[in-house]
Amino acid sequence: MQLSSLLPHSAPNSAALKQDFHDRLVQQVIPFWEKHSPDHKHGGYFNCLDRDGKVFDTRKHIWLQGRQVWMFSKLYNTLEARPSWLNMAQLGADFLVRHAMREDGRVYFSLTEDGKPLSLQRKIFSECFWIMAMAEYSRAIADPSYMERARAAFARVWQWSKDLTQVGRIPFSGEPPSQGLAIPMILLNLIEELAGDDWKIYESEVNECIERMLKHVHTDTQCVYELIGPKGERLPGYEGRTLNPGHAIEAGWFLQHWALRLGRQELSDIAVNMVRWSFDRGWDGEYGGLFYFLDAEGYSPTALEWDMKLWWPHCEAMYAHLLNYRLRGEAQDWERFERTYQWTMEHFPDSEYGEWYGYLNRRGEVTHRFKGGPYKGCFHVPRALWLCHRIL
Amino acid sequence: MQLSSLLPHSAPNSAALKQDFHDRLVQQVIPFWEKHSPDHKHGGYFNCLDRDGKVFDTRKHIWLQGRQVWMFSKLYNTLEARPSWLNMAQLGADFLVRHAMREDGRVYFSLTEDGKPLSLQRKIFSECFWIMAMAEYSRAIADPSYMERARAAFARVWQWSKDLTQVGRIPFSGEPPSQGLAIPMILLNLIEELAGDDWKIYESEVNECIERMLKHVHTDTQCVYELIGPKGERLPGYEGRTLNPGHAIEAGWFLQHWALRLGRQELSDIAVNMVRWSFDRGWDGEYGGLFYFLDAEGYSPTALEWDMKLWWPHCEAMYAHLLNYRLRGEAQDWERFERTYQWTMEHFPDSEYGEWYGYLNRRGEVTHRFKGGPYKGCFHVPRALWLCHRIL
Repeated sequence: MQLSSLLPHSAPNSAALKQDFHDRLVQQVIPFWEKHSPDHKHGGYFNCLDRDGKVFDTRKHIWLQGRQVWMFSKLYNTLEARPSWLNMAQLGADFLVRHAMREDGRVYFSLTEDGKPLSLQRKIFSECFWIMAMAEYSRAIADPSYMERARAAFARVWQWSKDLTQVGRIPFSGEPPSQGLAIPMILLNLIEELAGDDWKIYESEVNECIERMLKHVHTDTQCVYELIGPKGERLPGYEGRTLNPGHAIEAGWFLQHWALRLGRQELSDIAVNMVRWSFDRGWDGEYGGLFYFLDAEGYSPTALEWDMKLWWPHCEAMYAHLLNYRLRGEAQDWERFERTYQWTMEHFPDSEYGEWYGYLNRRGEVTHRFKGGPYKGCFHVPRALWLCHRIL
Repeated sequence: MQLSSLLPHSAPNSAALKQDFHDRLVQQVIPFWEKHSPDHKHGGYFNCLDRDGKVFDTRKHIWLQGRQVWMFSKLYNTLEARPSWLNMAQLGADFLVRHAMREDGRVYFSLTEDGKPLSLQRKIFSECFWIMAMAEYSRAIADPSYMERARAAFARVWQWSKDLTQVGRIPFSGEPPSQGLAIPMILLNLIEELAGDDWKIYESEVNECIERMLKHVHTDTQCVYELIGPKGERLPGYEGRTLNPGHAIEAGWFLQHWALRLGRQELSDIAVNMVRWSFDRGWDGEYGGLFYFLDAEGYSPTALEWDMKLWWPHCEAMYAHLLNYRLRGEAQDWERFERTYQWTMEHFPDSEYGEWYGYLNRRGEVTHRFKGGPYKGCFHVPRALWLCHRIL
């Protein structure tokens, strides 16, 4: 599927904007990771990188290793077949294959620099990013054996996703049954990456993910709740009121891609609203930027970092608004895009050392100078720049 | 042991200051919890309380249930034998006995309002605060059976503390052996609370806790490291560089109490330094107040909330400086006390609804309006006010 062919409206000043995203991606962001992240001794990437690229911790976080393999493979496959990008992808893919997966298929959360296990989550996301890496890398080197591994791993993860006791999450008797937005949204995006044009083999899984995601979208309150009951019902207490605007916006464009592919207009409408509602509610009218967490009923969120401005919600919003605009041509989405683009480009990029800062306080001041940390790697920034470039 | 008798220097304006702490405790803080926290239907306390005391979540966090039982028992035992304070203690103690402990002695981290299990940590702190509650409540009602339970539970916790695999923390092969400051410091304080004047029965445990704590105190760098190797050696990476000034200050006064009790001057000197070094390094020269986390070598801490100003480090510092001053009579500690007292009283108390805010940003602006949350309850504020009052 060529996504652009399904997007009828062209953006104002499209060529210059396209060039801007390209240059930021290829000149300011990717070189930072090419220069500072490779571990040529043990393989894989250093992902804890200070402002100037200095390694401040050698542990390797598997979410980020997998995502970086995916990113370099994707750029090689779609932007430019640079051998150096393929080499970067190979460095990480080999490390992942050699060290990240246990015999039972569980994937560690973090490893030592030489690949010894450090931690394992009772979640399935390390597995998801391992699969995403293998799928795109398989295309890059045209070796179907990697795709076979990815699909076999996906079959296991799919089963686990429906019964998390298999990854060690044993619910206590007082816990109401609940489901998080993260699992169906990540799986839906993973299937897009894994299946490519063969998506019909995953048709039932796609429909199940969509159905699960839609339960989080409540039209009456115009909220996308992070955590709901099995039928979509609201849960009591602060967990049931938690909103994560960046997450909901990302889920919105994941869903929109499938709405377009499936030709489902009603789904496309919902996806547009998920982005608009979550952005409008999450935008800080006083200082600009998107809050990290909100409480749907206006209490203080319990997360200490709720009012911080993180790089990734801004990345997701930039692309989601551009996608909405290319799809609908409505001025309101262009305004949201421009507002996001401006605030983002004023606050996050580091013109001196490259890449972007990840963590700002509510006022938009940098609180953490590092470019790579336990949850920030070569992913959201280059993915957003690449996605925006691709649909322009 | 009467602590005050071991403190030779009297504070300037001592009577007025003593009255100030008393009034804050008895008029502004304790009434908030008396009015808003009791759950007369199911027992125990609501501990998620909004600015005005409204319950914003009904779950019951056991750290906070235990600490509140301890606090009301302590006030009843030492400040004033008000029957209403004993009733408050009983409400929580009965709930803890009825619901918080599993058959194997593990204590849940949180329960539903009617006492069903919600979560369990792979840590021993819920157990510690359960024990602390039972010990002080036993004195309040003069019923030794509660003390017997507390001491039996302590014997189990002591064993677990030396082998955390027994509470489910199975180390991975790449993990270097490490130990956190939290365990020996909490156990040392717990023994003070549990043993009272009978502390000789715990003499070997006390000495072991002290020995373990001292490994965290590195004179060469004037740092108290949160995480170290088994011999006190520095650990690599950001975990090995993590400083938590409030924690180290609290550990300092825990240690000072034992140095005084044991008559060990060299230990007293170390305890004084732990407080001074950690405070001087942790104080924000630009906006005032104590940072939550620091990196010992100046990197950005990975914790998103590192630059926030939390209520409890300020509570600990206020008491620790006052203790140092009463002990040594040095102007430098009085200056630290006054600086802490002023910043604290300007920023944390809520004169309208009572109690204190818990979470401020670096500038000292309130970021979370609630008075009670998953980790803030009826404990650090009233304990510090009571401790300061007691030594004046």
